[in-house]
Amino acid sequence: MEVFFHYNWQVRKEWMNWCEQLSQETFLKERIGGVGSFAKTLHHIIDVEWSWIRRLECKPDPETTLSQETTLQDIRQLQQMYQYDVQAFVKRWSPSYENRLFDDGHPPLDTWGVIMRHIIAHEIHHIGQLSIWARELDLKPISANVIGRKLS
Amino acid sequence: MEVFFHYNWQVRKEWMNWCEQLSQETFLKERIGGVGSFAKTLHHIIDVEWSWIRRLECKPDPETTLSQETTLQDIRQLQQMYQYDVQAFVKRWSPSYENRLFDDGHPPLDTWGVIMRHIIAHEIHHIGQLSIWARELDLKPISANVIGRKLS
Repeated sequence: MEVFFHYNWQVRKEWMNWCEQLSQETFLKERIGGVGSFAKTLHHIIDVEWSWIRRLECKPDPETTLSQETTLQDIRQLQQMYQYDVQAFVKRWSPSYENRLFDDGHPPLDTWGVIMRHIIAHEIHHIGQLSIWARELDLKPISANVIGRKLS
Repeated sequence: MEVFFHYNWQVRKEWMNWCEQLSQETFLKERIGGVGSFAKTLHHIIDVEWSWIRRLECKPDPETTLSQETTLQDIRQLQQMYQYDVQAFVKRWSPSYENRLFDDGHPPLDTWGVIMRHIIAHEIHHIGQLSIWARELDLKPISANVIGRKLS
C-alpha cells in the first residue's frame, strides 16, 4: 500500500516540476475530459487524497476551489499544507485497518482497504490524462513506470 | 495486490463492452498520446500484464502485433488466451514473493513486488487515457472508481 503512495507522490512532484515550463494560460486552459486542465487535475488529486483521509479520520474536510489566479505555486502550497495529514496516516497504516467498514451514512459502504486503493487508482488515472494533454502540446510526459524508481 | 488486479480486470471488461459502440475505423483510429488508439491500448494492457508475468515465471514471451484487420473480437480472444496464466499467478501470489529480485540481465533490477505494482499502475494509467479519448468522441467513459465495485 505504502509503495503506491510513494510512487504517486514522486510522480506528482515530477509533474509539478514539469508544469513549470507551461505559461499560466496553458496551465489553466480548459481541456477535453478528466477534470479539465493541468491546474484542476493537480488540485483534484491533492484534494481528493487529503479529503478521503480526513473522512477516514472523521475530521472536517473543507473544500478549496481554483480561480483564474491560481498558480502552480498555489498548488504546491496546497500540497505542502495537506501532506502532513496524508503522510502521517499512510505511515501508521496497519493491516488491521484493511477490513474496517467506512460508513458516513451514504452508500456505497466500503472497507478502509478499498478506499485506500481508490485514492491510489484515482491519482494514477488522472495522471494518465495529463500525459495525453502533454502530447497534445508536443511535450514529453513524465514516465508512469513504477519500475526503476527505487520504491522498495 | 489481488484487489487491484480484480479492479483492473473488471474495468478492462467494461471498456471492451464500451468499445462495442465504436465503428472499426474509430476503434483503430490513431490518436494523440499513449500508445495511439483504443485497439492498441487494450492490446497493450493485456499484452504487458501477461508479458511481465511470463518473465517472472521465466517462460517465453512471444510478441503479438495489431493490423488494420484487428477487431474487438480479436482483442477479446487475446484476453481469453492470456487470462489463464495471469489469473493463476495472481491467485498464488504469496507475501514471500514480495522481495524476490527480478534479474533478467538488464537494468533496472527490481523486486517482484515492484513489478506487480508496475503492472497494476500501467493499466490504470492507460485507462485514464481512454477516458480522454472517449470525451473527445462525446461519449461517457467507464467509471474509474474503485469504491462500490464489491472488490473486498
